[in-house]
Amino acid sequence: MHVAAPKAQRSLPLELWPMNTPLYGLNSLREVLTRHDILRVVRNACVQHAHDKVISAKSGELLFQNPPGDCHIRFGYFRGAPTFVIKVAMGFYENPTRGLETNNGLMMVFSSLTGNLIAILNDEGWLTSWRTAAAGALAAKAGAPSRVTALGILGSGHQAELQALWAAHLLGTQRVVIWGRVKEKAERLAESLQLHALTAHAVSTVEDVFKQCNVVITCTPSTQPIVLAHLVKPGTHIVALGADSLGKQELDPHILAQASVIMTDDHQQCAERGELAHALHAGLIREEVCVALGHVLAGNSPGRLSDHDITVADLTGLAAQDIAIATLAVEMSQLSPSNSALPPP
Amino acid sequence: MHVAAPKAQRSLPLELWPMNTPLYGLNSLREVLTRHDILRVVRNACVQHAHDKVISAKSGELLFQNPPGDCHIRFGYFRGAPTFVIKVAMGFYENPTRGLETNNGLMMVFSSLTGNLIAILNDEGWLTSWRTAAAGALAAKAGAPSRVTALGILGSGHQAELQALWAAHLLGTQRVVIWGRVKEKAERLAESLQLHALTAHAVSTVEDVFKQCNVVITCTPSTQPIVLAHLVKPGTHIVALGADSLGKQELDPHILAQASVIMTDDHQQCAERGELAHALHAGLIREEVCVALGHVLAGNSPGRLSDHDITVADLTGLAAQDIAIATLAVEMSQLSPSNSALPPP
Repeated sequence: MHVAAPKAQRSLPLELWPMNTPLYGLNSLREVLTRHDILRVVRNACVQHAHDKVISAKSGELLFQNPPGDCHIRFGYFRGAPTFVIKVAMGFYENPTRGLETNNGLMMVFSSLTGNLIAILNDEGWLTSWRTAAAGALAAKAGAPSRVTALGILGSGHQAELQALWAAHLLGTQRVVIWGRVKEKAERLAESLQLHALTAHAVSTVEDVFKQCNVVITCTPSTQPIVLAHLVKPGTHIVALGADSLGKQELDPHILAQASVIMTDDHQQCAERGELAHALHAGLIREEVCVALGHVLAGNSPGRLSDHDITVADLTGLAAQDIAIATLAVEMSQLSPSNSALPPP
Repeated sequence: MHVAAPKAQRSLPLELWPMNTPLYGLNSLREVLTRHDILRVVRNACVQHAHDKVISAKSGELLFQNPPGDCHIRFGYFRGAPTFVIKVAMGFYENPTRGLETNNGLMMVFSSLTGNLIAILNDEGWLTSWRTAAAGALAAKAGAPSRVTALGILGSGHQAELQALWAAHLLGTQRVVIWGRVKEKAERLAESLQLHALTAHAVSTVEDVFKQCNVVITCTPSTQPIVLAHLVKPGTHIVALGADSLGKQELDPHILAQASVIMTDDHQQCAERGELAHALHAGLIREEVCVALGHVLAGNSPGRLSDHDITVADLTGLAAQDIAIATLAVEMSQLSPSNSALPPP
């Protein structure tokens, strides 16, 4: 029971990990996860969440001053599931100056029957990026008018690229129009999208995006409206991804006031820290226009009433999405032949 | 950027963990951690906490119904430290019926400059047990009268055994008296303590413990007072470990009313969920008698005023203690020769 070692022993890697718990790194996750599967489980996660089938703890936050950074933890499980998931996500904003990615993180899957560790997914933040890309694409499809002219993307970062690839694929359009505060970055993103067989180009103003596109996904870290109400034509669907914490905002609240349908991934969360928060605070909208994204994805509620509506999807991120993709990653990894290389039990 | 694998590749264990992040299991932690070092860093953690040098997030909790269990997460860092720590602790109360330990858990150490994962400590809950044992022993010493007649232990579980071993050692006494609700378990604990060169015996009543001992550590899951005020003689020091959440209680609140010094690991936390909560709620004590354990350990405040005082230490557990022991474990593991067996960078 006491700490002194019973006997000296060399800690070979396997001994360092006596339970032989599988550890999956980013490369092996890329191997076993497909966009199709991720869309499937994230869609299901949104539906389960809307039906209150998810138990999750309030996410914890730890802040760092110098250099600036933050660490968020979400954890939870689907009612009755044999596993639960803990997700750790970090953002350290000076990392690029050190040649490192800003975002990082990992997920852990445990037995909800015994608490035993089942797997660690050292995804370096990618599982979060992928589940966010899936949620954005599903929300874009859920509210899109019957004919999509082109997909607009506001933002030119990491998530903007994923949104363009995943949403264009799901919407069945090749045409992507990109605006970013730094034109060169938007142009570089357009070029890299062309490598994926998309007809992508960068434009100089947000107005140019809304002139050409009737589905627009916003994924910037903006703290003030970059989309003004007069730019948004009838028949436009906007997916707002950027605002996920207090102080962030991308849409003029009057756009939500004009919307016939506002889809939220979680009403309470959006009312606290999404675009919805600003519109509610300004007293601009009736909560009746709000519907859970999960109910739309389940086909229980329409994403838009006509091709002339303005519709908005406000996404702030769900623990359910983290739980779903982590569970998928473990299931697929356990099925993968590469597992023959895992330490034997 | 998209999910489909760039190329098939066998995931050998090293490739599963591309960053070669060290993973330390319980055996290797037992190898490098000594009681002496743990006492040193936990003492320092209590002092740092008392001086407000610790940044920690409110601990998150996830509950499970069937089978009953809970998962707690604490995370934080020492101001200015290059690392931060996330600690996951589980309790699944039907595990013993499956031949598993009730408690489980792991800790992770990250860079507070970049968010990069530095190490995973798969301690199965032992780091928490050890830091708790250290805190109990330090608190026992901090309030002990000049001559210790014998060490009393209320409880006969896992933590009771650690408290007996660590506190007897620190107090310099061989005499240990144990009471547990199940006499046979207390007798088995006494026998196992005898194997560690302690003169230990089990008694039938809590009263018998207080007749023989002037330092008593309580570590039971009791939800009502098991130590009544009339049992406690002048010159007795009690360390209350069991009550760490709402509803738990081991001491008659009048004992705190009689105490000349009440040490708390964290005043606010004890006032919310420790023994202090019950005494404050009953309006029995003046907060002036309360002092931070860290101030006593630092020598800035006395643990008792005379050998005739009754004194109490109320411990509810600190993130600082988790941070300290996890940091120690990584430092010692990185120094350990067994590391030559780690995957090369």
